[in-house]
Amino acid sequence: MRIQLINPNSSADMTQAMALSAQSVALPDTDILPYTPSHGPKSIECAFDEVIASAALLDLIEEGNRMGVDAHIIACFGDPALDAARELANAPVIGIAEAAFQLAGLIAHKFGVVTTLARTLPASEHLLQKYGYQHRCSGVRATDIPVLALENIEADAYECLKSECLAAIQNDGAEAIVLGCAGMSALVNKLASELPVPIIDGVTAAVKLAEALHQLHLQTSKIGQYGQPVSKPFVGRYAHWTR
Amino acid sequence: MRIQLINPNSSADMTQAMALSAQSVALPDTDILPYTPSHGPKSIECAFDEVIASAALLDLIEEGNRMGVDAHIIACFGDPALDAARELANAPVIGIAEAAFQLAGLIAHKFGVVTTLARTLPASEHLLQKYGYQHRCSGVRATDIPVLALENIEADAYECLKSECLAAIQNDGAEAIVLGCAGMSALVNKLASELPVPIIDGVTAAVKLAEALHQLHLQTSKIGQYGQPVSKPFVGRYAHWTR
Amino acid sequence: MRIQLINPNSSADMTQAMALSAQSVALPDTDILPYTPSHGPKSIECAFDEVIASAALLDLIEEGNRMGVDAHIIACFGDPALDAARELANAPVIGIAEAAFQLAGLIAHKFGVVTTLARTLPASEHLLQKYGYQHRCSGVRATDIPVLALENIEADAYECLKSECLAAIQNDGAEAIVLGCAGMSALVNKLASELPVPIIDGVTAAVKLAEALHQLHLQTSKIGQYGQPVSKPFVGRYAHWTR
Amino acid sequence: MRIQLINPNSSADMTQAMALSAQSVALPDTDILPYTPSHGPKSIECAFDEVIASAALLDLIEEGNRMGVDAHIIACFGDPALDAARELANAPVIGIAEAAFQLAGLIAHKFGVVTTLARTLPASEHLLQKYGYQHRCSGVRATDIPVLALENIEADAYECLKSECLAAIQNDGAEAIVLGCAGMSALVNKLASELPVPIIDGVTAAVKLAEALHQLHLQTSKIGQYGQPVSKPFVGRYAHWTR
Amino acid sequence: MRIQLINPNSSADMTQAMALSAQSVALPDTDILPYTPSHGPKSIECAFDEVIASAALLDLIEEGNRMGVDAHIIACFGDPALDAARELANAPVIGIAEAAFQLAGLIAHKFGVVTTLARTLPASEHLLQKYGYQHRCSGVRATDIPVLALENIEADAYECLKSECLAAIQNDGAEAIVLGCAGMSALVNKLASELPVPIIDGVTAAVKLAEALHQLHLQTSKIGQYGQPVSKPFVGRYAHWTR
Amino acid sequence: MRIQLINPNSSADMTQAMALSAQSVALPDTDILPYTPSHGPKSIECAFDEVIASAALLDLIEEGNRMGVDAHIIACFGDPALDAARELANAPVIGIAEAAFQLAGLIAHKFGVVTTLARTLPASEHLLQKYGYQHRCSGVRATDIPVLALENIEADAYECLKSECLAAIQNDGAEAIVLGCAGMSALVNKLASELPVPIIDGVTAAVKLAEALHQLHLQTSKIGQYGQPVSKPFVGRYAHWTR
Repeated sequence: MRIQLINPNSSADMTQAMALSAQSVALPDTDILPYTPSHGPKSIECAFDEVIASAALLDLIEEGNRMGVDAHIIACFGDPALDAARELANAPVIGIAEAAFQLAGLIAHKFGVVTTLARTLPASEHLLQKYGYQHRCSGVRATDIPVLALENIEADAYECLKSECLAAIQNDGAEAIVLGCAGMSALVNKLASELPVPIIDGVTAAVKLAEALHQLHLQTSKIGQYGQPVSKPFVGRYAHWTR
Repeated sequence: MRIQLINPNSSADMTQAMALSAQSVALPDTDILPYTPSHGPKSIECAFDEVIASAALLDLIEEGNRMGVDAHIIACFGDPALDAARELANAPVIGIAEAAFQLAGLIAHKFGVVTTLARTLPASEHLLQKYGYQHRCSGVRATDIPVLALENIEADAYECLKSECLAAIQNDGAEAIVLGCAGMSALVNKLASELPVPIIDGVTAAVKLAEALHQLHLQTSKIGQYGQPVSKPFVGRYAHWTR
Repeated sequence: MRIQLINPNSSADMTQAMALSAQSVALPDTDILPYTPSHGPKSIECAFDEVIASAALLDLIEEGNRMGVDAHIIACFGDPALDAARELANAPVIGIAEAAFQLAGLIAHKFGVVTTLARTLPASEHLLQKYGYQHRCSGVRATDIPVLALENIEADAYECLKSECLAAIQNDGAEAIVLGCAGMSALVNKLASELPVPIIDGVTAAVKLAEALHQLHLQTSKIGQYGQPVSKPFVGRYAHWTR
Repeated sequence: MRIQLINPNSSADMTQAMALSAQSVALPDTDILPYTPSHGPKSIECAFDEVIASAALLDLIEEGNRMGVDAHIIACFGDPALDAARELANAPVIGIAEAAFQLAGLIAHKFGVVTTLARTLPASEHLLQKYGYQHRCSGVRATDIPVLALENIEADAYECLKSECLAAIQNDGAEAIVLGCAGMSALVNKLASELPVPIIDGVTAAVKLAEALHQLHLQTSKIGQYGQPVSKPFVGRYAHWTR
Repeated sequence: MRIQLINPNSSADMTQAMALSAQSVALPDTDILPYTPSHGPKSIECAFDEVIASAALLDLIEEGNRMGVDAHIIACFGDPALDAARELANAPVIGIAEAAFQLAGLIAHKFGVVTTLARTLPASEHLLQKYGYQHRCSGVRATDIPVLALENIEADAYECLKSECLAAIQNDGAEAIVLGCAGMSALVNKLASELPVPIIDGVTAAVKLAEALHQLHLQTSKIGQYGQPVSKPFVGRYAHWTR
Repeated sequence: MRIQLINPNSSADMTQAMALSAQSVALPDTDILPYTPSHGPKSIECAFDEVIASAALLDLIEEGNRMGVDAHIIACFGDPALDAARELANAPVIGIAEAAFQLAGLIAHKFGVVTTLARTLPASEHLLQKYGYQHRCSGVRATDIPVLALENIEADAYECLKSECLAAIQNDGAEAIVLGCAGMSALVNKLASELPVPIIDGVTAAVKLAEALHQLHLQTSKIGQYGQPVSKPFVGRYAHWTR
């Protein structure tokens, strides 16, 4: 099967890193097709970044849809444009936050989320509520590490991340840790080997859920909210969406 | 004061209609500055339309912010990009759904929402939950009138709209009606004269709330979630956002 | 327009202070008509005080209703007798807690409430839940300043109030502060000039909402819960309510 | 033990009827002391009635408290002034709605509530939420029988009440019925003999809970919300509350 | 009346202790029939223990049902197998956690729960949510005293228990304390005499609620969820359940 | 990998059917090890059946745990004994209801559940709440087909099942259907080919989630709620649990 792996920010290095991570857990006959948008912010760290990234991301979803990929992954922990992408796509679309919450919920009663800037906390809380996992979360903790500093992470930043994970376990009662940024995907094995609880990374979780849905022949329902968008004119830089 | 009134869809006729509506309730020294985006869909009727409209809308917010307007109104019932706009703006930003729910809540125990396509129902339900008005809403009803058909509305469509309002009152227990589309703004007086309960239109509600906040010298809090977006590079058609 | 401003406690000095505050933000053609009940407690600081004040307050609502005022404000942060007042009145009735929560919600993602005695905390929490703003509130803090000590507030008490506001911002994540007592209305400008977030006072908020509803010709819905009370005999000190 | 049974409306006949009902289930050494207020409405059927009745009711609570009764029952399904009464009283104070919901919850997964006028529905819904029994209630149904028509109930009205109970069972999935008015207390045995599910009357439920608390030596906690009201001056017709 | 008092763990000493406690508050004509299962764990301290105890407990319920007892009490704070027991029984079945929450709710706005091992916290939280008392609970605190150590409790353990009660009052705002284990029943009077708030023990609370329901002729509803289990074959060690 | 597939009821035919279904979607190197308990009910259709089945099921979990299987599936839609099983097991334990809700949530905004007897509705509603999927469910519908009638299902029963699925889509707004019984697993392909929305079966969903967790090296967290049960004596037919 072919999985379109979209990094919604425009940092190609980060796309490369998460593609490696995705490929490392994929089945032999799963192709990971990594995509970086040509438009948008270098990282996504607030609602503004997310709105801009969302519009660019939908061009990629449409491209994947036309290519007939078997699943799309939106690899940013804010799950930007997820509902809109499901309207466009026939194959399943998986957000990495939803994926991580689901797998965490299968192996722990309460999980903690450890994320980047404090600015992103309301976004995580909103997703926990939207997906119904609020009561399963022992708390969301920020490290104040910027997204782009996660690539080639320095020792200091890694220690800070690890110590917030420990605080989540010891102070908040977290029984598992969800990594709150696609940029942390490369760190999941190291953290898992150094911490006493399961560590869940959304990118790899999403790959496995995409494979699961594909093997079950489950696609996005086109009845109801996720039906194709209504055809209509678009103008200006979005004129290509007219149909 | 100057209020930037943004119609997030690209139909200039609709912008004109809602500007008339807004001006009709504004105080003498309030200037309504209507804006139509140069980019985006002709109407907003699903999550996909909303994502595309959101990115275009933020350019206008930034333009208003640089001009130093005293308030911004986002005049689409989905309140698109509201949190992102509040990050960008110093003045208050008001979404017409939030405005309508608030005023309805002051004069009725339970209000009904009457909207356009059934496709938009999940969006309304999401906003009721986000703003905390779910328990005050007797139900959301779709008319299946497309947004653009509201301009120069035909007699049939008007009767359909009115009969859904009546059904909300008689079957659902609505004690007031919130109009679920900026395009219905011009109909509020006619409906109010023909129905036994208050009719609340978000566009005019938002104008009065904007004036209220201005006269109280209340602006968007720049501490916390609504602080200025983090500066960073943007590429492609969003390169102008780099700072 | 004429706004009946009811102080539900029997301290005329406090009525005077809040009338000044209300007048200071009112439009030129808005008359603030201040009312102090002839019956009831000097201040409202627990459920018992609130029940007694509520009965007295309704006489004033009825008086305002007969005079044809254009709006009624109940200026006590417990919003006493609000539903009952809406049954009696044709014009809108606004409680200062509901007014403050609404305006705070337009300019901040999370607001804190700073109030008087710890005894009043459950009342504030109940109102946040009733109005659906619980998830928008970062916490309610008591200062243990009695209501009547707010008039001619001493330096110590003012500092205590200010430091609870700061604690709400720094410890609880409040992005705006709602003042939890009508008696704090005179302090709103001083606090706003000394604190880094917007400060919302319910008395002035209610004045602007009353003007907003009036200019939109919105009145209390008389269909459903807020319909006129059923006529019936009353005895004893309430015999005047028989109809 | 001595239980003060307060009918919060001023209809002495109704007090008499509920006293009979209460006495019929009381233990041999339980004295039911029935009280009718000298002030207030003949019946309680909306928020306005409830506010007026509440103030009068507290005089009776205070009288019972001074007499040293062992429990107080507030016998109106709106549980008027319950929190305020608990502040005044040392002995337990029991509202008949809370009592009925509790016992219903012990013998049925879902119970229905059948009440008087449709006007009272929001009050019942508010209490279900306040006490946390909303998810246990299959629905609240109004009969549109006025409270005072329950005394010497006519055959028609009785049939109407019974048929709403049946509708609750058959259409809503009610597994037990809570009678939503103290005035229905005399009908509980007849209904129970004619319907296939348990029928719970709040007046008799409250008597048994009062006895239970008394025998366990449990009294109202005077720490926290139910502590004695703060002493202060009262004026006018409430001057007697000054202390 | 006859109340079957089931200790769901297999420690006969503990059964004896709780029977004494139950008898001490029972009415003169109430017979407490204590039961200890012949199968199952010595104490119940996690979900595993609870599942095993539940199956054994139902044999005792059925035995009580055949004997025609007037009520059944399940005396373990996890309320194990409560819904299943209500299906089997005609008489009311009362769990001690539900009983304690109900009586606590009548005399305090917020109650704390003090329990045994930290392992049991999720169970208590689940029950608070199931019964709708989550918003009435100021917090659940573990003492880390094993269940069986409560018998012949040592001075140290008693002081630990008491100090957690005090912490609940002083730090969490508890206005009453619910004892979170049937094994604490014998300590209720000592704790009540040494602490400033009411102490509620579920075993004694359940006895009084059982008497209350019996005197009101209220039995488990056999319509709906609590109807008799469907007849069917059972195999192996449960073959005796075939019917 | 080896997946222990436990049918919690004692019908070996049903175990065989679900094993076929599981094997049909498993990866080539996944072994499905089907287990039928030697103790317990022929089918699980109420809380009583579930309690009895739960105790027997844990013996099988322990057996699988000792064998070192890589995952356990509890294949009954009530997810019986799920928390207890997670305490015992080191590998992940997956309940088919939780599995089905998760996958349905990835491809539809709202899903309907179609189940067997009306008796099981409260169990499904409880699980939706426990897992946080209540707001994603458009409704649970019973067919009144007994569990065992699903094997070798007759044409009539199949039509009934299909027509409830259609009613869920057309009347309730279901965008996908979750099959509410492990016994329906064999029907998923036929239903999917005849209905316009995705059909999700929990047995096959659980197999894919088990594989996903295994490939990600994620096991049950042994810190917190799912830690090993406390060692202690057990008596009677559970004496083998003593450790």
